[in-house]
Amino acid sequence: MGSDEKAKVIFQPSGRRGEVEKGISIIEASRRLGVDIEALCGEKKVCGKCKVRLEQGRFEKYGIESSLEHASPWQEEEDKFITAAEKEQGFRLGCVAQVQGDLLVFVPEESRAGKQVVSKAARDIPINWNPAVKLYTVQMTPPTFEDPLGDFERMTQALEKEHGLSGLDIDWFTLRQLPGAIREGQWQVTVAVWNDREIIKVWPGQVEDYYGLGIDVGTTTVAAYFCNMRTMEVLDTVSMMNPQCKYGEDVMARITYHMQNPGGLERMSADIIDGLNQLVEQACQRTYPPLVKQKDADGKVVKDENGQPVMVEAPEEGKTYLRLQPEDVMDLTIGCNTAMHHILLQLDPSYVGLAPFPPVVHRSLDIKARDLGLRINKSSYVFVLPNEAGFVGADNVCVLVAERPDQGEEMQLIIDIGTNGELVLGNREKLISSSCATGPALEGAQLSCGMRAAPGAIERIKIDPETHEVDYKVIGRDAWKSYSQPKEMQTKGICGSGILDVLAELYRAGVILKSGRFNPKQKSERFRKNPDNPRQKEFVIAWAEETSIDKDVVITQKDIRQIQLGKGALYTGCKLMMRRMGIEKVDVIKIAGAFGTHVDKEKALIMGLFPDCDLEQVSSVGNAAGDGARIVLLDREQRDVANWIARNVEYIELTVEEDFERQFMESMQIPHMTDDFPHLRGVVPDEVLDQ
Amino acid sequence: MGSDEKAKVIFQPSGRRGEVEKGISIIEASRRLGVDIEALCGEKKVCGKCKVRLEQGRFEKYGIESSLEHASPWQEEEDKFITAAEKEQGFRLGCVAQVQGDLLVFVPEESRAGKQVVSKAARDIPINWNPAVKLYTVQMTPPTFEDPLGDFERMTQALEKEHGLSGLDIDWFTLRQLPGAIREGQWQVTVAVWNDREIIKVWPGQVEDYYGLGIDVGTTTVAAYFCNMRTMEVLDTVSMMNPQCKYGEDVMARITYHMQNPGGLERMSADIIDGLNQLVEQACQRTYPPLVKQKDADGKVVKDENGQPVMVEAPEEGKTYLRLQPEDVMDLTIGCNTAMHHILLQLDPSYVGLAPFPPVVHRSLDIKARDLGLRINKSSYVFVLPNEAGFVGADNVCVLVAERPDQGEEMQLIIDIGTNGELVLGNREKLISSSCATGPALEGAQLSCGMRAAPGAIERIKIDPETHEVDYKVIGRDAWKSYSQPKEMQTKGICGSGILDVLAELYRAGVILKSGRFNPKQKSERFRKNPDNPRQKEFVIAWAEETSIDKDVVITQKDIRQIQLGKGALYTGCKLMMRRMGIEKVDVIKIAGAFGTHVDKEKALIMGLFPDCDLEQVSSVGNAAGDGARIVLLDREQRDVANWIARNVEYIELTVEEDFERQFMESMQIPHMTDDFPHLRGVVPDEVLDQ
Repeated sequence: MGSDEKAKVIFQPSGRRGEVEKGISIIEASRRLGVDIEALCGEKKVCGKCKVRLEQGRFEKYGIESSLEHASPWQEEEDKFITAAEKEQGFRLGCVAQVQGDLLVFVPEESRAGKQVVSKAARDIPINWNPAVKLYTVQMTPPTFEDPLGDFERMTQALEKEHGLSGLDIDWFTLRQLPGAIREGQWQVTVAVWNDREIIKVWPGQVEDYYGLGIDVGTTTVAAYFCNMRTMEVLDTVSMMNPQCKYGEDVMARITYHMQNPGGLERMSADIIDGLNQLVEQACQRTYPPLVKQKDADGKVVKDENGQPVMVEAPEEGKTYLRLQPEDVMDLTIGCNTAMHHILLQLDPSYVGLAPFPPVVHRSLDIKARDLGLRINKSSYVFVLPNEAGFVGADNVCVLVAERPDQGEEMQLIIDIGTNGELVLGNREKLISSSCATGPALEGAQLSCGMRAAPGAIERIKIDPETHEVDYKVIGRDAWKSYSQPKEMQTKGICGSGILDVLAELYRAGVILKSGRFNPKQKSERFRKNPDNPRQKEFVIAWAEETSIDKDVVITQKDIRQIQLGKGALYTGCKLMMRRMGIEKVDVIKIAGAFGTHVDKEKALIMGLFPDCDLEQVSSVGNAAGDGARIVLLDREQRDVANWIARNVEYIELTVEEDFERQFMESMQIPHMTDDFPHLRGVVPDEVLDQ
Repeated sequence: MGSDEKAKVIFQPSGRRGEVEKGISIIEASRRLGVDIEALCGEKKVCGKCKVRLEQGRFEKYGIESSLEHASPWQEEEDKFITAAEKEQGFRLGCVAQVQGDLLVFVPEESRAGKQVVSKAARDIPINWNPAVKLYTVQMTPPTFEDPLGDFERMTQALEKEHGLSGLDIDWFTLRQLPGAIREGQWQVTVAVWNDREIIKVWPGQVEDYYGLGIDVGTTTVAAYFCNMRTMEVLDTVSMMNPQCKYGEDVMARITYHMQNPGGLERMSADIIDGLNQLVEQACQRTYPPLVKQKDADGKVVKDENGQPVMVEAPEEGKTYLRLQPEDVMDLTIGCNTAMHHILLQLDPSYVGLAPFPPVVHRSLDIKARDLGLRINKSSYVFVLPNEAGFVGADNVCVLVAERPDQGEEMQLIIDIGTNGELVLGNREKLISSSCATGPALEGAQLSCGMRAAPGAIERIKIDPETHEVDYKVIGRDAWKSYSQPKEMQTKGICGSGILDVLAELYRAGVILKSGRFNPKQKSERFRKNPDNPRQKEFVIAWAEETSIDKDVVITQKDIRQIQLGKGALYTGCKLMMRRMGIEKVDVIKIAGAFGTHVDKEKALIMGLFPDCDLEQVSSVGNAAGDGARIVLLDREQRDVANWIARNVEYIELTVEEDFERQFMESMQIPHMTDDFPHLRGVVPDEVLDQ
């Protein structure tokens, strides 16, 4: 297998790409490019776990044309695992299909090995119970000739008498359930009422618990809190990659995809809607007992006629399972950045990408789930959080709803670093916001050895200032390299949370200068010219023998430049906002998002990611966007707060600020001017600081 | 053609049925059973006008099994006129397909010859212009960096400033059109606002005229007023048979169809929704120039490759055509009886048919057109008028909204005779309503020679009291029989409006007694025993030679009994309501519906259809139900009036009234007690009256 001819292969959603010899299997190609695809059976074509989807069409961004014909012909074995409908969509088994031309390969969540470490657990935050959807139970008397009142009026009279609700509407789809439910419940029903206004569900008899999801739709990740809306308990958190990643990693790439492809907007919207439906499905699945392989009396696995193991439920003793369906979900709240908001709702995002960047709508929206194609309770509404501006969206509103900087005296700086950086500065007097193009580098993407936070990713590093020797630790292995055999490390790359560590250590050890350039006075053989491109300098973090990808993990001068651009953009934003606000220093810094959870505050300060601040006052607030979505799910007054915030935070377009470019150039330095960073003294050696 | 073996054939929606020899064409069968199917080409199989649909399945009601196999095999000629999809649905050409077994044949509206005479023209009624949907035009300034406000908020600020509208919502589908419309209109747009609350349409630039339909969905006929909502002008009236007729002629038959057939409710609902879409389509088509056959220079008709004439538009000079599309319809109001209401909305109608007959809902409903599957403007609502009770529906509310008996001192009796009779009695003090099972006989249906009001139907009759000889006139021919050759009459049957005439004349001439039985002292040979059923007596109205159906048009003792049941039910209702109200006489009688338009007041009084009243005070109010739908279309305050009326008219269930059965038995007589009918003296000969 394999040939001399080469083909380009790109794996999504990881974005890993490279050239491979034609004739090798897709699984093999994934391995060479450092992508993990599940393959339980060891490519014996019997487990069906390595399903991938071959995308079709021309992908300008990568300069390739991908097509089903660029893979070897369909094999009989694939029929067992891939339905006709999936085949139509381009699904293949990775161990069967061979690369015969350029391919864009999408690896579905379930086929990915070493699943992403998602740290979007729910924080304990105080929430006032006042959901938009509430339940009421009423008992009626049956109609008679003397009192032939119709079902709906009979019920609403009882609701008014027993619960003081008046003027209630009812959704047509729920009205259709009414006569059956009333009689099944023998004239007792429970209704779900939305905003004291509309009946969106009717059950026979008495019902107490009901469910909802607060969802944070990020450019890269979609995460949801699945809540019991009566008890406010978070039943589970579920997450997935944003299925739109295949159209481009950042918001501008997706806006461009819309502008260049007729029907592109509808396609991207359908993908995320489909993803949200999967997420709801996934949340519901967790309310069932786990499935295990059925075994016979001798302990042998029972198989069906296709040779597949038969799965049976294995409930934990004493545990009750809710066994919920998507139709049991009564409310759903969604927060996302403005571009994701517009694409989800099929609102033309072109103008969000064009100065002066006006969004189509700021205010929150209540949209029937069925109109959006979301398969929860048919009459339910989806609450979509409001946008602040073209580049500061509902996700930022969520952060503010969770953190409420408008309620204190302290001057707070809130930083939300995703693929875009969003900044809010202020206190009860005034709040301003802005966005900055941090790019994906701060999250480890698009770097030569960047990868997701998965096993094998470097997450901590130390560099000896004397010898420039490197020690590090990877996700999935407790022992540092210095305590391991090289082979045991199975290193694959550097993840987002590791990237700042690496750079800060390179700087503190003197491997790089504050300009970001490599120090010519190198003390180890790790510094070299790239073998394929001698003009590019690089520093080896891990030698090939320590990796599972059979090549050195390096950081190049170009990688460093990318990170400098990202951190420079962020720092410039902070500085310009402080100038606007007329302040010299901030009291508190809060870092939201997954980045904030993983970043080492000290390293971030060393890198000059944000303005100088007492490290005691720098904290991570976790998935504040998700928290915001959860807060508005459980307390409808916070929906008004969200709208108030969205209209009262003043958005500042940084790129048109006087002095922007000079500030940006200066901010690329590590760390800018020592006068600005009194807290750095003692953390970074003086000789480095005073270069 | 033809054989000795017979098959049962039933034509829908007319309900005509009979046995025919196997082997004859469906067209031939239709002719023998008095059904008119269009056949322009004279059965040369080239015009394709005689398309019919063969229904499939067991039809308990008629005791037959109908199937595609009960017709002769498909012929090549049919491919030209019937699409594959239609073929799938059972469509055939009536001139090609031969009867080879029992068949239920549905004749689509467009295939019916001698289209029904629909007299639902718009009355001139004063309406206050205050529609639920209104248009507003606004001019905005484009966004800048200093004022980057989003599109929706920019527009609503302008709407508030220029038109005082605040707190406006927008439908998601309209929001999606917003950014494009704003820019196409260069920051000027016109919006349609529903109930001062929600934006349901946005056009670039300025728009003034907009359109809506007020629809009356009857059990048998569906009629709509197509209005310009700015000028209130009625552009056109359109109507069609209710496509649900095939499931049964009256409301109970349809409720039964629902109860006996899983999915039956959904099927009937889909049929009427489909019908409403056709009606809207039809209304829009009328706004285009008529199509005529294209002719070449020599005056010869130009044909396409299939030999079909090429049609071209022939605009009338000086006339402008609106060229509207269904999407241009901004509002739609629907009034119907409670059963039609429930079936249309897929609300379980079972309980409407079971004592104490509670409807699922009384109040009016605003439902998104798209949820119902109505293809008008996607964001528009449909207003469905409220129901009074299980058997007094929104159609009656429409009548009351149009007539407002609650505003005067006079004691009004309003009678709406459709397949069901609906009665309202009262004045400003109090209003009561009830319904009575008049059955279809008063409309001429289910009688041995009953038919629709179409050419060939007897509509006026005179019977000589001396000789019992008959003279009559048919629809479509001005000359009475006595001035015509028998062959010229082409009589087919008796229509609804003629049936009361016939009976009143039979009675006045002494052919029947006031018990309804035939007078044994007959003076002509027209009285006879039915040849096939000697126990059934009948009176010949028209001899076979005068007809186009080659058989005598007769009225049987059973027919008379049916009509007596109908009129007895109606009269009983009136009397019991008067008793409840504590009155001896009414001041005014108004007869609504098509029946009211056609009925001869004097004959109705003779028959004792309603209580005695000065004939000067008896009037027809035409299609008051349709007028009501039009009124609420153009004046939204009348929607509140409709809801008020629906809740404040007291419904009386007559069948549980004391004495109901005795009253009913007495009411069957013609005319009941002369003391009750002082106005009859002089109209009916004393010797008949005093039998």
